[in-house]
Amino acid sequence: MAAEVAAEVAQQPAEANGAEPETGTSAPDASQHILGLRERINEIDRELIALWQERAALSQQVGRTRMASGGTRLVLSREREILDRFREALGADGTQLALLLLRAGRGPL
Amino acid sequence: MAAEVAAEVAQQPAEANGAEPETGTSAPDASQHILGLRERINEIDRELIALWQERAALSQQVGRTRMASGGTRLVLSREREILDRFREALGADGTQLALLLLRAGRGPL
Repeated sequence: MAAEVAAEVAQQPAEANGAEPETGTSAPDASQHILGLRERINEIDRELIALWQERAALSQQVGRTRMASGGTRLVLSREREILDRFREALGADGTQLALLLLRAGRGPL
Repeated sequence: MAAEVAAEVAQQPAEANGAEPETGTSAPDASQHILGLRERINEIDRELIALWQERAALSQQVGRTRMASGGTRLVLSREREILDRFREALGADGTQLALLLLRAGRGPL
């Protein structure tokens, strides 16, 4: 990985020097437009991370509550409902996303 | 899958009949608490789906803008930045999530 990073840094000296972020185009208008779009993407990423963390904590709390009351560790019908929801909205990516979410929600086994 | 679903429905007749969602516990207080937590989880899932869709559209727009101006198809340093961001916040799950997001953002190849 270090070699890969070093090779890429050598290709993109501007960014490595702390200058403007690399947009992959030398056209100023396009570059400006891309930077604007990336601002919103960065904001979305911060929201995704916060929601992910909140969801994992809530889901682990569900599991602890259930087990403390003598219930089951998992509820398969609920997991299937979540898989269906994400698959219906986002297709195959949704299934992958839901599998990650479910795993994070189960917490350390 | 149909057989699997049928087997599960047989185990959980209440839910299959449209009654209360299955919480996996027979303790009423715990069950009520779980249903409350799930409401927020469901809300988070709706937000995650909306953000995912918005992000994919924006990211595909970035790619189209860049290529239309004669730029590169991808910017590896930007992809690495996103991978780092998610890995730092969410660990190994974050890497997986970022890989899915990057793929969705590239759009149909």
